Amino acid sequence: MSDRVLSPSDLRAALNAIGDERYHIHHPFHRMLHDGRLTRAQVQAWALNRYYYQSRIPAKDATLLARLPTADLRRAWRSRLEDHDGSGPGLGGVARWLKLAEGVGLDPAYVETTEGILPGTRFAVDAYVAFVRDRSVLEAVASSLTEMFSPTIIAERVSGMLANYDFITKDTLAYFTPRMTQAPKDVDFALAYVDEHARTRAQQEQVLAALCFKCDVLWSQLDALHYAYVEPGRVPPGAFVPSA
Amino acid sequence: MSDRVLSPSDLRAALNAIGDERYHIHHPFHRMLHDGRLTRAQVQAWALNRYYYQSRIPAKDATLLARLPTADLRRAWRSRLEDHDGSGPGLGGVARWLKLAEGVGLDPAYVETTEGILPGTRFAVDAYVAFVRDRSVLEAVASSLTEMFSPTIIAERVSGMLANYDFITKDTLAYFTPRMTQAPKDVDFALAYVDEHARTRAQQEQVLAALCFKCDVLWSQLDALHYAYVEPGRVPPGAFVPSA
Repeated sequence: MSDRVLSPSDLRAALNAIGDERYHIHHPFHRMLHDGRLTRAQVQAWALNRYYYQSRIPAKDATLLARLPTADLRRAWRSRLEDHDGSGPGLGGVARWLKLAEGVGLDPAYVETTEGILPGTRFAVDAYVAFVRDRSVLEAVASSLTEMFSPTIIAERVSGMLANYDFITKDTLAYFTPRMTQAPKDVDFALAYVDEHARTRAQQEQVLAALCFKCDVLWSQLDALHYAYVEPGRVPPGAFVPSA
Repeated sequence: MSDRVLSPSDLRAALNAIGDERYHIHHPFHRMLHDGRLTRAQVQAWALNRYYYQSRIPAKDATLLARLPTADLRRAWRSRLEDHDGSGPGLGGVARWLKLAEGVGLDPAYVETTEGILPGTRFAVDAYVAFVRDRSVLEAVASSLTEMFSPTIIAERVSGMLANYDFITKDTLAYFTPRMTQAPKDVDFALAYVDEHARTRAQQEQVLAALCFKCDVLWSQLDALHYAYVEPGRVPPGAFVPSA
C-alpha cells in the first residue's frame, strides 16, 4: 500500500471496483431469484431471512446515530430511522418488508418472531450491527456504502421477479419503490462524509475495507440461503422448512 | 413450556437430545471429512477456517473469566486458557492447530493472518465470543457444553482421517489427543455449574437454548465450508482458493 492519498474520484473508482467484484448482485442465488428459477418456497426462505436483516437496520442506524457528535450529523442520519420505521404503524421499510413476506405466502407473525431464520443470517446481520458499534465512525459510515450499488440490484430484482413469478405482484414488491430514492440520498451523505473524514491513505483503506466487510455481510446471507434451500437443500436443524 | 424444574438427569437428557439433533457430527461435511471423501485442498480449507475458531477460544474464555465472580470459578476456568495457549511458545491447542494446518500443506504464517477465511466462519465465531460477553454467565457457561459431545466426534474424526488420507499422520492430528481428556474435565465443571445455578425452569430453558446456539455456531461453519469448497464449490470473493 502506498501512502499517497487518493483523490475523491480515485477513491470512488476503488469503491466501485469493490462493488464490481463483491456486491451480491453477482451471487448465484440473486441470479436465480431474478431469473425466476426459484420455487415459491425458496422465495419464502429468502423473504423470511432477509426480514431479519431489514429488522436490524434501525438498530444499526441507532447504534451509529448514538456515536455521531453533532446535531447536524445525527439529524441527517435520523432520516434513515424514519425511512425504515416510518411515521406510524404499518409504515416504513420494515413494515413493507413484512408485507412482502406476507405477499409470498408467509404468516407475518411468524416472520416477526425471526424463529426459523438461518444461523448464518443471524450471525452475518449481528456482525453488521457489531461493526457499526465497535469500529470508528468513519468505518461505520463507510459500511453503508453498499447502497451505491443497490438501485441496480433493486431494478433487476423487481423487474425480474415481476416478469418471472406469477405469485409476485407490484404491490408485494412495494418495499423497493421508496428505496430507489432513499438509497441515493443516503449514499450522497455517506460519500460526502467519507470524502471529508478519510484524510489519510490509511483511513481511505479503512473505508475500502469497511465496504468489503459489508459486501461479505450481504454475500454470506445468500451463501447460507443457497446452501440450505437450493438443490439438494440442506436446511440446518431448527430452521424454516417450507410446506411443500 | 411447563414451570416444572427438571431434575439433573432430565436436564442431562434434554441436553443430550439437543446434541443428537444439532451437533455437527451429523453435518454432511463432517461425514465427508472422516470418510475420506474430501480432497487435500478441501481439508486445507477446513483446517484454515477452523483455525479461526481455535484462535478465538482463548478470547472467549478470557471474556467469560472476566465475568466470573470468585477466585475459585476463575481458577477453574483459567485451566481452559492454559489448555489453549499453553505454557510457552509452540505449546497449547492454538499452536497445535497451527501444526495441523501446516501438516495438511498450509503456510502457518498465512493461516495466522486469518486472511482468506470465509465470512461465514468469522461471523459465526465472533457471534460465539459476543454471546459469552453479552448473555448471563449461566448461558455463557452452558454454551461450552457442546464439549459433552466432542470426544465422540474427535474419535471419529481422528480414526477416519488417519485411515482415509495418506497425507494425514498421527503427528498432524496431535491437537486432538489432549482434547480427549481436557474436554471431559471442562464438561464436568460446566455441568456442575449449570446444576447449581439453573434453579428455575426458565433458567434451564436458557441453558438449553445456549447449547442450541452453540450447536448453530459449529454447524454453520460447516455449512459455509461445504457451500464454498464442495462440488460445485462457490468460493466467495476474497476467500482462500486452494492451489490445484
